[in-house]
Amino acid sequence: MTWTRISTAVVHEGPFIAVRQDVVVRPDGVRGTYEHVAMNDVVRVAALNDMGDVTLVEDHFYLQRRRVLHLPGGGAEGQEPRDAAGRELAEETGLTASHLKPLGVIDPLPGVTAARVHLFVATGLRTGAPAREATEAGMKVITMPLREAVAAARAGRITEAASVAALLLVSLELEGGKK
Amino acid sequence: MTWTRISTAVVHEGPFIAVRQDVVVRPDGVRGTYEHVAMNDVVRVAALNDMGDVTLVEDHFYLQRRRVLHLPGGGAEGQEPRDAAGRELAEETGLTASHLKPLGVIDPLPGVTAARVHLFVATGLRTGAPAREATEAGMKVITMPLREAVAAARAGRITEAASVAALLLVSLELEGGKK
Repeated sequence: MTWTRISTAVVHEGPFIAVRQDVVVRPDGVRGTYEHVAMNDVVRVAALNDMGDVTLVEDHFYLQRRRVLHLPGGGAEGQEPRDAAGRELAEETGLTASHLKPLGVIDPLPGVTAARVHLFVATGLRTGAPAREATEAGMKVITMPLREAVAAARAGRITEAASVAALLLVSLELEGGKK
Repeated sequence: MTWTRISTAVVHEGPFIAVRQDVVVRPDGVRGTYEHVAMNDVVRVAALNDMGDVTLVEDHFYLQRRRVLHLPGGGAEGQEPRDAAGRELAEETGLTASHLKPLGVIDPLPGVTAARVHLFVATGLRTGAPAREATEAGMKVITMPLREAVAAARAGRITEAASVAALLLVSLELEGGKK
């Protein structure tokens, strides 16, 4: 009961995303097509200081037409996820981390794209100057207690899926709950 | 410091997803293009019985080339999210719910698509017969204690982003933790 790929073709190629149309045999044995989005993997970083505060960033998102509060991160751009996490953290917040520990990997829209989001916890932080992209000109850095960020995720003030997952996962981990 | 839309055009139209290319003014005032995926919103349902068990489904995902364990759900297909959640739950598991409570709304890939995932908690469950799509022929229903599902999310055995978020959110809610 699996899918089989017969062939694949790019039907749209853009600057950040491509669309592929695959000819497949479906789990029920019927031949069909499967269209999907090819894009870079993504990283998100929960950067924690010694006081238990986490650093978030807020900027205006085009598609949501509002300011969005989220963990630092972005496209891996072909880098190893850990390297990309350190780069995005530094670019967006100015923070450099002596430790970047993997927290998990999630599938944001597994029916639509194979791209994954790699989650990290950053500790051993040193402050520096951000080096933002031009499109991030309105970005603001907000540091708050982790429990406050978890409350914001529960209340719907943080909605970016990977940020919600990472904040809840790291909070459970720090509570020392049994796996 | 916001983005402004000048115009929009469909550059690819597929059966489930379309790609739009918008002409925009970026936050730094520079004119550019922004490409994004137009697709239906998605729903995910954490269905809880009176014993504190949650119902998951597992099937083979084409893009991940493996079986994926996730909460019942799928594309809203133009329905109200709550109606879609009830429909997907019934189709995939046979369960009907007397209560469907909103748990939150998350943005799976906010830089790429405006589509959102609507999370629900279903209670007051009655069992019935599933009515799966042909592509879901290999789907298996797995009911387990909620704490076991949370452990599976923490251990990376559940990776679908909205399932991870919903399981952790509902678990915190049942624990009665302060918001």
